[in-house]
Amino acid sequence: MKIACCQINPVIGDLSYNSELIYNKLIENREYDLVLFPELALTGYSPRDLLLKNEFIIEINKTIKKLCAVSLSENLPPFLLGTITGKDSENIFNSVILIENGKISYEQHKKLLPDYDVHDESRYYHREKNNRLLEFKAKKIGILICEDAWFDTVNKYVKNPVDYFVENKPDLIINMAASPYYYGKPVLRKKVFGEIVSKVKSPFLYLNMTGGNDDIIFDGGSFVLDNTGEIVIKADSFREYTMIYDTEKKYFKVNFIEKKYETIFQGLCLGLSDYFKKCRLPQKVVIGISGGIDSAVVAYLACKVFGKENVLGLALPTQFSSQHSLEDAEKLCENLGMKLEIVDIRNIFELYNKTLSPHFESTKWDVTEQNIQARIRGNILMSFSNKFGYQLLTTGNKSEIAVGYCTLYGDMCGAINPIGDLYKTEIYEFANYINSKEEIIPENIIKKAPSAELAPNQKDQDSLPPYDILDGILYSFIEENLDIKEIIKKGYDEQTVNWTVNQLLKTEYKRKQAAIILKVSKRAFGQGWRMPVAKKYII
Amino acid sequence: MKIACCQINPVIGDLSYNSELIYNKLIENREYDLVLFPELALTGYSPRDLLLKNEFIIEINKTIKKLCAVSLSENLPPFLLGTITGKDSENIFNSVILIENGKISYEQHKKLLPDYDVHDESRYYHREKNNRLLEFKAKKIGILICEDAWFDTVNKYVKNPVDYFVENKPDLIINMAASPYYYGKPVLRKKVFGEIVSKVKSPFLYLNMTGGNDDIIFDGGSFVLDNTGEIVIKADSFREYTMIYDTEKKYFKVNFIEKKYETIFQGLCLGLSDYFKKCRLPQKVVIGISGGIDSAVVAYLACKVFGKENVLGLALPTQFSSQHSLEDAEKLCENLGMKLEIVDIRNIFELYNKTLSPHFESTKWDVTEQNIQARIRGNILMSFSNKFGYQLLTTGNKSEIAVGYCTLYGDMCGAINPIGDLYKTEIYEFANYINSKEEIIPENIIKKAPSAELAPNQKDQDSLPPYDILDGILYSFIEENLDIKEIIKKGYDEQTVNWTVNQLLKTEYKRKQAAIILKVSKRAFGQGWRMPVAKKYII
Repeated sequence: MKIACCQINPVIGDLSYNSELIYNKLIENREYDLVLFPELALTGYSPRDLLLKNEFIIEINKTIKKLCAVSLSENLPPFLLGTITGKDSENIFNSVILIENGKISYEQHKKLLPDYDVHDESRYYHREKNNRLLEFKAKKIGILICEDAWFDTVNKYVKNPVDYFVENKPDLIINMAASPYYYGKPVLRKKVFGEIVSKVKSPFLYLNMTGGNDDIIFDGGSFVLDNTGEIVIKADSFREYTMIYDTEKKYFKVNFIEKKYETIFQGLCLGLSDYFKKCRLPQKVVIGISGGIDSAVVAYLACKVFGKENVLGLALPTQFSSQHSLEDAEKLCENLGMKLEIVDIRNIFELYNKTLSPHFESTKWDVTEQNIQARIRGNILMSFSNKFGYQLLTTGNKSEIAVGYCTLYGDMCGAINPIGDLYKTEIYEFANYINSKEEIIPENIIKKAPSAELAPNQKDQDSLPPYDILDGILYSFIEENLDIKEIIKKGYDEQTVNWTVNQLLKTEYKRKQAAIILKVSKRAFGQGWRMPVAKKYII
Repeated sequence: MKIACCQINPVIGDLSYNSELIYNKLIENREYDLVLFPELALTGYSPRDLLLKNEFIIEINKTIKKLCAVSLSENLPPFLLGTITGKDSENIFNSVILIENGKISYEQHKKLLPDYDVHDESRYYHREKNNRLLEFKAKKIGILICEDAWFDTVNKYVKNPVDYFVENKPDLIINMAASPYYYGKPVLRKKVFGEIVSKVKSPFLYLNMTGGNDDIIFDGGSFVLDNTGEIVIKADSFREYTMIYDTEKKYFKVNFIEKKYETIFQGLCLGLSDYFKKCRLPQKVVIGISGGIDSAVVAYLACKVFGKENVLGLALPTQFSSQHSLEDAEKLCENLGMKLEIVDIRNIFELYNKTLSPHFESTKWDVTEQNIQARIRGNILMSFSNKFGYQLLTTGNKSEIAVGYCTLYGDMCGAINPIGDLYKTEIYEFANYINSKEEIIPENIIKKAPSAELAPNQKDQDSLPPYDILDGILYSFIEENLDIKEIIKKGYDEQTVNWTVNQLLKTEYKRKQAAIILKVSKRAFGQGWRMPVAKKYII
């Protein structure tokens, strides 16, 4: 049996675009015995609260009917499709259906509904308890829908869907997924699915969605494990791809390595690009270019995604901006071939101070005046956005967002943040990765001490612990989910750990109003980070 | 048996404050046979992702042990406590425990875990399947934890916990709750619990938490239904209260009406006040006073909550501000007795225009210049916040937030929005309610046509459908969850309905970065509104 596995990139809620895409893939792959489309291929993942609307469910049902009709009239190959099934919004399943000769001849609903990290599936779906094999062309196929394969990693689940396969050995297991990317996930998948193969002894076909959806990036990266658990076929990642699998053919082991900044780079490009496409925004951006490393990395990404002619940099100096900052900004934009405009905001800043002076009499210069500068920049950047239809990219890194070292309505302004899930130390590594491909980011930007330049001779390290320490603590607390004691046991200073965790928790009000941050780590500030603002923690 | 039901207001995560509060209530109510504390009284509702931390769970266990010890050493009365139980973050239940003579002598875990609206309980808790009655002082008591009583309203649940009571008739049902307030909920509770009483024929004691927690307000409003389903005891709403119930006493029906703006007013005051207390913020606020009705209502609320001496109004006129706006602002602040400062932003606005003119050459005045004004205001309001420690209250209403008739980083700036869950038409009704108590809001503010005053002779109704129509459509789509066709069937113009729904869905990116909005309706923009930004809908 020859199977075409279509790793597609649907748009959430866009049933006509998605069904057209599915139709085209069916036409392209007519000669195959079976064509596969990932979990929720018809609706995109996840439609979230659109699923609460009956009219949306009705439209899904209509679209499935149309696909059935066209599959008969145009003699399309049989296909397995991930879609929502059910009659109304209160009675839906996350399902896989087989459409064959105009009819739905098999249906399997998802059994394990994830509610951790970015997921909310119990909010929407009913849970299926039963499993049955798909019998197709004299083969027994076991279908798992994404999370169904992850029983062992979550201890809330009651029954492992894989157990059924151990008893009723299928010839092939197919996992239809919409599995969010983070760095390390591809390796983890191989491990988790490999364990299933070692239990069931069947080949394992993994088909994942691709595409960016708000903060979540689906990497695709579909693959086939043979019945020894080795990867024998591997789809490209971060783009649409059709992977062909012939059940009768002998395959050999394929090597597979996950290179950190290469995959993160690809992921961020896809996430950024898709946000614009799927919001139907003009493909052009404006970025505040400070001469620092964060905006340099964002500018590089933007030029890759939108083309240098669609990226506008703005340098917005005040009296606290150093000469080298402007030079570095100019050099960077020259290297990238992108336009840089300079808007000196000194006069505006002074006029604010003058206007406010009767109200601020006998107060001292403090963070207020720093924030005023950042917010003037926010206003001017947004004015270019409003005037010319550029979207503003915001450039905060995960370290500063975590401890609130950023100005609400100032440098936090923007539609989307491509680097907000990378710690400052990772930004440096990323910059080096970029320069290893092409010498883009001026050496001085990488070498100089980071500064917000909002006060005389300001340096980040005057207010924050050294970044390697700060990032180590944050990573331990956020991604590794360690307790404070465990972090101290790693060798970090107790006071610094307490300061960092406390700072993280008390600046939640800023992240509440932050732009969308593309997720590339196990735990990002976004849909999967749900902290109360008003609270106290145990420190 | 005499029961003291302590409707308390815990702080999320603050185990020492909460256990102290519980201890004090136990001392106060020593003479009772049993003392009750609501669902998650020990941790507050909901600690959300704090629950993913093992150290938090360990600390909860330690605190329970301390409470046990002190209950023995100080001979405290037996008490039923809502708390999290379990050994680590991956193995927790939402539970009620009975602490008696230093020991936990009964434990019941929650059986129905809500995942709709603002709830995420499947994210955190294991689900209990079994039920057992508490036998206490020769009484059989059936315990329901909040959602356990709402089986009939959600069709995803498999087994009704109440069925067990029908078979094993308890002498009393106790529902320990942390049930978020919205207008209409108190009446709904009486109905839903009344149906349980009609099945089980036992009295029904409902104990709810009180207090504000970010966007969610718990109203308390605990009550007892007799075995005919009539309310016979009723606690106060929106404050801490100890309700006493004697199982042996004969009670009579108590009348109960839910007055819309009176309860909403109380709820908003509590939500606002608690946000400041629980974030440990200085109790003072700054508000942009435009001379319009929204900021007038917010100023009134702020004066009630923080005292007029802790409320600063700022009028920030430009050339587009009408004379009457400033007069209305002054009259309002005079009526409220609060301070108003005037910061004329014309010069700053002009300097922005001048600074930008080389960049904006041969472009026309448009929404850009409107937004610049709004963002100058945001910057200045925030500068007062930063300089003096005021929190900025934002004043957008639900109608404008729904259709995006507001400026990101401009009038959307602020820590919290007390009126963002009230439609414009409700704001008028609320203003009239306020004036019916005391003549505070100048008549002219209520009567004049609403305007953002960001362009010459601008009126809201030039850009938006009339508010009664807009609000009717939005309410139908959001709160009533109707389909577009159903809304048109109500008599609304098709084009207007499509425009409104489309506008709602395409401005999601603004709400993504909005301040916390106090929830007083069935469906608010907040934790319970989860819409993708990048998407397409069926229109």
